Amino acid sequence: MNTDLRESLQREFPHLEFLHEKEDLIPYSFDGTAAHYSQAELVVFPKTTEDVSRLVRFASDRSVPIVTRGSGSGLSGGSLPIPGGLIVCLSKMDRILEVDTKNLCLRAEAGAITAQIAQAADAAGLFYPPDPGSMRISTIGGNIAENSGGLRGLKYGVTRDYVMGLEVVLASGEVIFTGSKCVKDVAGYSLRDLFIGSEGTLGIVTQVVLKLIPKPQARRTLLAIYNKMEDAAETVSAIIAAKIIPCTLEFLDAMTINSVEDYAKVGLPRDAAAILLMETDGPSGAVEDEAAKMADLARQHHAREVKIAQTAEESFQLAEARRAAFSALARVAPTTILEDATVPRSELARTVKFIQETADRYGLKVGTFGHMGDGNLHPTFLTNEKNEEEMHRVESAMKDIFDFAVGLGGTITGEHGVGVAKKPFLAKALGDLNISVMRQVKKSFDPKGILNPGKIFDL
Amino acid sequence: MNTDLRESLQREFPHLEFLHEKEDLIPYSFDGTAAHYSQAELVVFPKTTEDVSRLVRFASDRSVPIVTRGSGSGLSGGSLPIPGGLIVCLSKMDRILEVDTKNLCLRAEAGAITAQIAQAADAAGLFYPPDPGSMRISTIGGNIAENSGGLRGLKYGVTRDYVMGLEVVLASGEVIFTGSKCVKDVAGYSLRDLFIGSEGTLGIVTQVVLKLIPKPQARRTLLAIYNKMEDAAETVSAIIAAKIIPCTLEFLDAMTINSVEDYAKVGLPRDAAAILLMETDGPSGAVEDEAAKMADLARQHHAREVKIAQTAEESFQLAEARRAAFSALARVAPTTILEDATVPRSELARTVKFIQETADRYGLKVGTFGHMGDGNLHPTFLTNEKNEEEMHRVESAMKDIFDFAVGLGGTITGEHGVGVAKKPFLAKALGDLNISVMRQVKKSFDPKGILNPGKIFDL
Repeated sequence: MNTDLRESLQREFPHLEFLHEKEDLIPYSFDGTAAHYSQAELVVFPKTTEDVSRLVRFASDRSVPIVTRGSGSGLSGGSLPIPGGLIVCLSKMDRILEVDTKNLCLRAEAGAITAQIAQAADAAGLFYPPDPGSMRISTIGGNIAENSGGLRGLKYGVTRDYVMGLEVVLASGEVIFTGSKCVKDVAGYSLRDLFIGSEGTLGIVTQVVLKLIPKPQARRTLLAIYNKMEDAAETVSAIIAAKIIPCTLEFLDAMTINSVEDYAKVGLPRDAAAILLMETDGPSGAVEDEAAKMADLARQHHAREVKIAQTAEESFQLAEARRAAFSALARVAPTTILEDATVPRSELARTVKFIQETADRYGLKVGTFGHMGDGNLHPTFLTNEKNEEEMHRVESAMKDIFDFAVGLGGTITGEHGVGVAKKPFLAKALGDLNISVMRQVKKSFDPKGILNPGKIFDL
Repeated sequence: MNTDLRESLQREFPHLEFLHEKEDLIPYSFDGTAAHYSQAELVVFPKTTEDVSRLVRFASDRSVPIVTRGSGSGLSGGSLPIPGGLIVCLSKMDRILEVDTKNLCLRAEAGAITAQIAQAADAAGLFYPPDPGSMRISTIGGNIAENSGGLRGLKYGVTRDYVMGLEVVLASGEVIFTGSKCVKDVAGYSLRDLFIGSEGTLGIVTQVVLKLIPKPQARRTLLAIYNKMEDAAETVSAIIAAKIIPCTLEFLDAMTINSVEDYAKVGLPRDAAAILLMETDGPSGAVEDEAAKMADLARQHHAREVKIAQTAEESFQLAEARRAAFSALARVAPTTILEDATVPRSELARTVKFIQETADRYGLKVGTFGHMGDGNLHPTFLTNEKNEEEMHRVESAMKDIFDFAVGLGGTITGEHGVGVAKKPFLAKALGDLNISVMRQVKKSFDPKGILNPGKIFDL
């Protein structure tokens, strides 16, 4: 970005903080996606919606591209800087504005941290279910941009299911509010739902109204240990067939188990082929009942051991093992390529098997964990980005896995978004017609193409 | 529609049934909305998605407007014919194609009847929760076009919450599929969510994949009778404050109670000011517990009587009283103008009071019933469309009620859609900017404006 432009921005917005020194820009030059890096040039921290609106007008007048960013914990490169572009970081717009217990909802600025939203709900005796892995640092605006999932998707759904209203700055700088505090609202197209998951390409979300629900009375966490991966997958099918919808059904494969043990020493069995982490919540009686049934089903499907947490602390520890999975794998190799292939639940067992076979075929190391109840797998390739030849094999393996998932009626991304990381695979997954309709939508919202250009698809 | 065009259509589609005789067209000239009528000219009944696609291409080539229609049970004139237009009625595309118990979903053609979908789910031990009042005749395609609600919105949400995938014929005649059988899928914009609630103006939904959930173990229905409307409203607030989310929280006012008694003689107390119909479902123990708590809360808020249904038949009878409300009111006067104003739940008591005062001020008869748990009210004006002067007063009263609801952060339509009936009120409710963005979206999907033109807003 040229100096004139920067100085004119700084003159125009004297009350805002800017970053433009090289060392300050390093953290803004990547997100949580390994092997994607792009040099940030200028970061601005607006404090109000009005600031965002004026920044967008300024950028639009000069055709300067804008990338909106929260904590940068994204996993598809969606907030990667664009050459010559301005980074609008919403981290200073982080207030929780209202917890409305009468209407079971909460209003916050887009830069509010997900975990703090969950805590504010909890303090009011309520519950904000979406819990993306990065919730301790991620912003709610980022969650909405990516339509983030988490560990409770099976029972409670994803971010979309909890968004009642959005304040959005459009590419013109105008501000709209879409949605309401009403449980039902069908007045016109749901622009709200279109913004959710649009990865900052259609508008900049500045404020959100989120639905809350009553806190479940009780919760029970179980861990089942398997000698065979297929048995874990069959346990999941058996639980669903028994008409039980647990809030969590996570699994870790052998590679992941061992990495977690190396990293966190939580006492996982290093010789197991798979573990399932299961959690049920709801009314106390029903929870006990479901936990017992899930333990039985796990045993019937050859779990060699089933642990039922007896205290909240034990539950927390079991869940931490799963939460540590990505960080643990990330320590095994210089570069971890985390994927997000998702299939209809019925196709899980085959998919897990295919991932392992594919890694073997390409001579790669892979750890797989994920949200088994959602069919949402995170095969994680352990590699080194400096080894070009190996990276090439990783790409081929990923491509095979995506093709396999799509062939089974699945998708290339369950919860991480497309960004730049999955962009090369989108057209094949959705078909050209879907992409061309999306392009038309993009053009109608952002005719100059200044909002996060080059993400999801090219115009 | 000119005879040449009709004959050329019939020649082009010799395998399809057409209606063009005046007497055959009567049922296609209106929907469930009183006081809206438009002469149908030609109706065609496609049998496959390919038929729909070819019909759209034919219409597009000749710039013939298309109105898509199911059973015509809509309540906002969304399927009202357009002069010179073709009515594409999907009632012959009514097959349930698949009940997938492994992935907890169901695939059906858009013309499938909602109640049959619910039955198919039930037969598989599963549950399709959305239950719009017209579900015995409405089509699932119509439900999706309007994003229909129903009596279970508070706990289970609305149609949108159960749509996993849609096959849609675009204005070009091309066919896309948007969504998947995956619980999580964030590959690109959610076109699916944009089509839901777009009232046939962006594309023609031909096939749907719906999410199913396990059937609740138990269910308990209660009826509470009040001498004062405020007490009923306060009971609702107290239930929510107690962190109970019943599946149903419906109310009927005095006028509605008496109309239902005249019509169906179900034994409702004619001297009551309001009744609340409440239903809780879930695990047996929790249901008993919640039902007892709800009965207590009703008594604490001066319910003069609380009946708890002891058998499934008693439950069914209580629920039927509510289901009969609209039909019962419709017999009281030649014309019933059913409204759909919705407010945040906390504003219910004031809104109900305002509706009654408004009716009094304009010298009108109104019966109000609705989904109290959702803040979704159906004030129903009992009038006569032949009395122009009275109809004028009804319009003024409706306008006042909408302004009041919008002023409280509510909406002009909670579940019936905009169509033509609420079109005059939309801009004021949403603001011009929202409408102009929606117009841009419409233009990007339907540049020639052939899909249900003139509904929701004008281009």
